Amino acid sequence: MFQQEILDNIVEKGIQSLDFQKKPDNLYAPVEYVFSIGGKHLRPRLCITAYNLFSDNIPQEVVHCAMALEIFHEFTLLHDDIMDKSDTRRGRPTVHVKWNDNIAILSGDMMSIMAYQHLAHCPQQHLPKALKLFSDTATGVCEGQQKDMDFENMPFITMDDYLDMIGQKTGVLLACSAAMGALLAGAPDAQVNALYNYGYNLGIAFQIADDYLDTFGDPKVFGKPIGGDIANNKKSWLLVEAMHRAVSEERKGRLKAICGMPEARREEKIAAMTALYVEFGIGEDARKAISEYSDKAIEALVKGGLNREQIDRMKEISDKLVQREK
Amino acid sequence: MFQQEILDNIVEKGIQSLDFQKKPDNLYAPVEYVFSIGGKHLRPRLCITAYNLFSDNIPQEVVHCAMALEIFHEFTLLHDDIMDKSDTRRGRPTVHVKWNDNIAILSGDMMSIMAYQHLAHCPQQHLPKALKLFSDTATGVCEGQQKDMDFENMPFITMDDYLDMIGQKTGVLLACSAAMGALLAGAPDAQVNALYNYGYNLGIAFQIADDYLDTFGDPKVFGKPIGGDIANNKKSWLLVEAMHRAVSEERKGRLKAICGMPEARREEKIAAMTALYVEFGIGEDARKAISEYSDKAIEALVKGGLNREQIDRMKEISDKLVQREK
Repeated sequence: MFQQEILDNIVEKGIQSLDFQKKPDNLYAPVEYVFSIGGKHLRPRLCITAYNLFSDNIPQEVVHCAMALEIFHEFTLLHDDIMDKSDTRRGRPTVHVKWNDNIAILSGDMMSIMAYQHLAHCPQQHLPKALKLFSDTATGVCEGQQKDMDFENMPFITMDDYLDMIGQKTGVLLACSAAMGALLAGAPDAQVNALYNYGYNLGIAFQIADDYLDTFGDPKVFGKPIGGDIANNKKSWLLVEAMHRAVSEERKGRLKAICGMPEARREEKIAAMTALYVEFGIGEDARKAISEYSDKAIEALVKGGLNREQIDRMKEISDKLVQREK
Repeated sequence: MFQQEILDNIVEKGIQSLDFQKKPDNLYAPVEYVFSIGGKHLRPRLCITAYNLFSDNIPQEVVHCAMALEIFHEFTLLHDDIMDKSDTRRGRPTVHVKWNDNIAILSGDMMSIMAYQHLAHCPQQHLPKALKLFSDTATGVCEGQQKDMDFENMPFITMDDYLDMIGQKTGVLLACSAAMGALLAGAPDAQVNALYNYGYNLGIAFQIADDYLDTFGDPKVFGKPIGGDIANNKKSWLLVEAMHRAVSEERKGRLKAICGMPEARREEKIAAMTALYVEFGIGEDARKAISEYSDKAIEALVKGGLNREQIDRMKEISDKLVQREK
């Protein structure tokens, strides 16, 4: 097994070598732009790290498959930003703002196809399984995004609904990334599945952490304004949990009143909801839930029969992710 | 070789058996809707017919691959309709009108993934080539659509630009459809390429015929209002050819004046441009170009060494397509 730094370098080199200098400009320049901004590259890192648990020989074909995961992820962000009317991402204007909606739609479409072009480099003996895993995952991500949009118009959703939604929107792609690495390395099915479950639970922990930081993060570190979820009545883990805790009429009334506060009273609304979350103990419980799901991620590896060294390596990644501050 | 009717039935059965009755509704109902409206199903028909040139054993795996072509085509129409702000298709409201833009974007994304899910059924020995052919084609279609949008803002385009654009937007998917059939049947490369070139040239003939009918079609048969391309200054084959023929200052001035007529004078504009096309002899020349490209399609099969019976079968399809009135 290589050091994580070496694996991360392989991923960065793979990203650097992606070539988007093609014509027509209006189709490829947005893709180039998206990749120039950077990101955590978590999905290809999971893939390459999981692969390396089973093999020290990392051919270019495997790097291509890891790139497919990142390109697909960036595609979903690009289209989500149109749908959510988000103006910025990672502190930079989104594609539909910098260009326009049509160019954002089409360059996104292009990226989803490019993802498959990279996946097509997969060693032939693994291609059918890899293609099925990837497409089933992609389907799940779309279903998750649709559910997320549907939730906007629903007054109340259960915690199960929420977990099902983020499981699809975030969980399945992390699951696929880790499982893909194991699959390409020729790991036995039980271990591929273990890495899938690891990624899935990590995805849920990751998303709850995201929701937590959106309210309780350090504004200097978080990278975007704190309280956006509250301002938009986003059905975050915190709000869903608060809705469940607001059993008394008095609590229900207060929660409803805060949600009903208009855009103009943004700061007041964020302060009121944050105070309510603190009073209900929801921030603390979110941290507990994050730990719980990252423990589940590791348990999946134990159950799948991975050895100590393999588990420690994956734990290193998940610990960093859930303890992050941005 | 089976009769064309039998092959068409296989395609229709394949379409009927597509299952879009899934959750969430807002994601799958638009897909169900698009397929309920119907269409010519030209791409899967080309695929299955080309396959049957080489084999009488048509397994379900091959039908799945043919479905991938149709699903991908419908996905491009769905997203094109958002980008072009088209309200109707085949006489019915488009998805972004019946639902909304976000649902149209996401259900389109879903369809492009579903196309790959069907393609994944491809017999394993052909999968790498089929996947590469399909993705390279899909990339071409996106490039063609971007060029088409870019042309809207250009005052003048050459006939080569136009042919390159429709070659990508329409040609490559028909090319891929015919070539895919041959590929899956295990035909030699030369014959796969011949069917690719057949489809490509047929696609160009098909698109010029579309442009021709938009101005010179019979309103009772055509299925949508005549003159839409003229009203929108669409860079159709007819307009591109007219721009090339308008060499004298007088002709240039007339063409420019007609293009400058506002939406409010729609009927007058259509009548004036149609008269100019007639005067320039452009309708007639369009018919010649259509014949020329359908001849090229057949020549490709002759050069590729297909036998008389095989060529006749493909000619049956292309003749019907270019002699159509709607």
